[in-house]
Amino acid sequence: MTPLPGAAVEAIRAAGRRMDARGWVPATAGNISLRLADGRVAITRSGFHKGFIPEDGVMAVDLDGRPEDAALRPSAETGLHCGVFRRFPEVRAVLHGHSVPATTLSRLAGDGLTLAGYELLKAFPGLPTHEAAVRLPVLDNDQDIARLQARVEHAWGAGAAAIPGYLIRGHGVYVWGADMPGALLRLEALEFMLACELELRRLRP
Amino acid sequence: MTPLPGAAVEAIRAAGRRMDARGWVPATAGNISLRLADGRVAITRSGFHKGFIPEDGVMAVDLDGRPEDAALRPSAETGLHCGVFRRFPEVRAVLHGHSVPATTLSRLAGDGLTLAGYELLKAFPGLPTHEAAVRLPVLDNDQDIARLQARVEHAWGAGAAAIPGYLIRGHGVYVWGADMPGALLRLEALEFMLACELELRRLRP
Amino acid sequence: MTPLPGAAVEAIRAAGRRMDARGWVPATAGNISLRLADGRVAITRSGFHKGFIPEDGVMAVDLDGRPEDAALRPSAETGLHCGVFRRFPEVRAVLHGHSVPATTLSRLAGDGLTLAGYELLKAFPGLPTHEAAVRLPVLDNDQDIARLQARVEHAWGAGAAAIPGYLIRGHGVYVWGADMPGALLRLEALEFMLACELELRRLRP
Amino acid sequence: MTPLPGAAVEAIRAAGRRMDARGWVPATAGNISLRLADGRVAITRSGFHKGFIPEDGVMAVDLDGRPEDAALRPSAETGLHCGVFRRFPEVRAVLHGHSVPATTLSRLAGDGLTLAGYELLKAFPGLPTHEAAVRLPVLDNDQDIARLQARVEHAWGAGAAAIPGYLIRGHGVYVWGADMPGALLRLEALEFMLACELELRRLRP
Repeated sequence: MTPLPGAAVEAIRAAGRRMDARGWVPATAGNISLRLADGRVAITRSGFHKGFIPEDGVMAVDLDGRPEDAALRPSAETGLHCGVFRRFPEVRAVLHGHSVPATTLSRLAGDGLTLAGYELLKAFPGLPTHEAAVRLPVLDNDQDIARLQARVEHAWGAGAAAIPGYLIRGHGVYVWGADMPGALLRLEALEFMLACELELRRLRP
Repeated sequence: MTPLPGAAVEAIRAAGRRMDARGWVPATAGNISLRLADGRVAITRSGFHKGFIPEDGVMAVDLDGRPEDAALRPSAETGLHCGVFRRFPEVRAVLHGHSVPATTLSRLAGDGLTLAGYELLKAFPGLPTHEAAVRLPVLDNDQDIARLQARVEHAWGAGAAAIPGYLIRGHGVYVWGADMPGALLRLEALEFMLACELELRRLRP
Repeated sequence: MTPLPGAAVEAIRAAGRRMDARGWVPATAGNISLRLADGRVAITRSGFHKGFIPEDGVMAVDLDGRPEDAALRPSAETGLHCGVFRRFPEVRAVLHGHSVPATTLSRLAGDGLTLAGYELLKAFPGLPTHEAAVRLPVLDNDQDIARLQARVEHAWGAGAAAIPGYLIRGHGVYVWGADMPGALLRLEALEFMLACELELRRLRP
Repeated sequence: MTPLPGAAVEAIRAAGRRMDARGWVPATAGNISLRLADGRVAITRSGFHKGFIPEDGVMAVDLDGRPEDAALRPSAETGLHCGVFRRFPEVRAVLHGHSVPATTLSRLAGDGLTLAGYELLKAFPGLPTHEAAVRLPVLDNDQDIARLQARVEHAWGAGAAAIPGYLIRGHGVYVWGADMPGALLRLEALEFMLACELELRRLRP
């Protein structure tokens, strides 16, 4: 087994620290992955706090989520990360977090959440202006990850792929980008708009 | 008297700093304990800010809460910590904090708070899926700690022990685990769900 | 002029950093004072951010608020600090901050705010139990500090001195203690209860 | 081309870190500028996170926003910064951030937001007392910056220049001052009052 590149491991650990600083990875929630140049996927192992990922807290899986080292257990939601990498060849980083606004809004929404009128929508690809309205898919949670991933693909089939992310109800947000800094920027933009949406719903119920 | 192991003292001090960073131990609120290998309990002394516990801010008591060194005063709520240790032999760490969501919700709740539909419920033992609904006991506050502990035991008798924690009204949260990292993970999971519950109640009164 | 003791200046600067970390001293808001052993009062100078008080950002005044060095300008509200020191001989530290909950609640309250049912009420003197109900005076703001201080003394005359603090409407909170750590603990306790009160008012308007 | 003074670059980078610490520059949002002694304007380049501005993340433009080095791309909103510098010769620093309160309130307001009864109004020029009421202009967002700047100038023509700032709907806040510390103090004061306004609107809809 080829060891994981140190820079990839460090990029994942640093992303975890930044997500923790913003309160988005409580307990062992959240997971982080990076597609490597050799096609493997580096992903956080199950059971660690993402704000304090140890050096050996990242492992390799293939594009179908199979661990390179069968003795290690990847994040339970590895299948969702690999689903993004399979569908979007240009994507190299996937982030999953649990924020209070994302979790709360996902429980109040139907099958999607519309974001419109935010300057920060420009952070998403193909949306050069704040006048766009985008619909973020909201999927029912499921402990059967293959079934949940099928639901994600169904939402993508309906054209929702324009937005590089989705919510899982009562669970959290997934977002991705061409590299780790790009994915982190999109996560911050999305979380900012979700925080504003929560405020707006309080004031205009 | 055998001195407390340095690692136990440091684990308690570090837990206090982490709770303080999240705003869960205002003023001298909160207390932290660890069961030692020799059966003694290391617990925070009364009167210190838990974000800045001095090296001599931790002391030893026995399982009934009696100080090893009679000259030192343990946390006023030592009896609640020892009650957890006596009831659950596998538990080694107990945390008590005062967060705004826990304190606020405890005042609005009756004798329990139901948590359901959160992925983070998986952080609790015996709840492998988010579809579980758990009931967190909410007990009336009492300055008579023995009487309060009797109330806790009554709640446990009613089957509430499935959840490793409870709220005291207008006061805060108790949570425990097999070790300090495990207890901290559960506290973060619980506080996250309580923060979401507070948001949900604002939006669906 | 006797220089200010370095420890007193450092205690004031450290208190400012801690208040800033909690978001209680926005812009140049807030001020901090300490009564010295020789009877003088060390107080923050006007115009600085309290999270970044420079070494020469603290100056001496007498108990009537007169600057020892006429070339320096003390906080505009020095008269309120000195009013506390004159009235309560045992008090050595006074803190004033502007938090969002204190400022918001002060605008919604009449001439007082009742706090009851909080375990943290024990942080105040003479309140050994959470069953106490205390009334925090809320005074109308005034740019005439002598007139504002007269209003404070009138509130104290009405028995409100039981609580070591008060609110000024649209402005912020004053709190004091026997030393700087004690005053900081009371400020944290008070701010925690005010944050809970704000949540409760949202949920039970 | 004369290199930018290191102190100016560092002042901009430090302001970005401080704004990030308060959550006001999510993703690549926000931008920061400083008028130099030689009349040029140092401004953040487009596309960077303002909490992590690299040493080469600041560039020079003239008062009309034209880049000194045509190979570099300044912030998309450079025209708004230069508009402030042209109109107010005494201004040397302009800050733009995206906070949750500013963005949320801008969407609920009409063409202005009235702030009254806050002690912190004293942070603004010409407002020595909290009894003042000021009207913060709220402008519709526009990707055409020249057209947006014309709207700003129209608002100034209507006398709104008394307040050194404005909001852009769904977008964020602009504020300025005689130097970087002064602009940061005003931004903090304004954000504090906006956070209070958001709370007040929740409680008195």
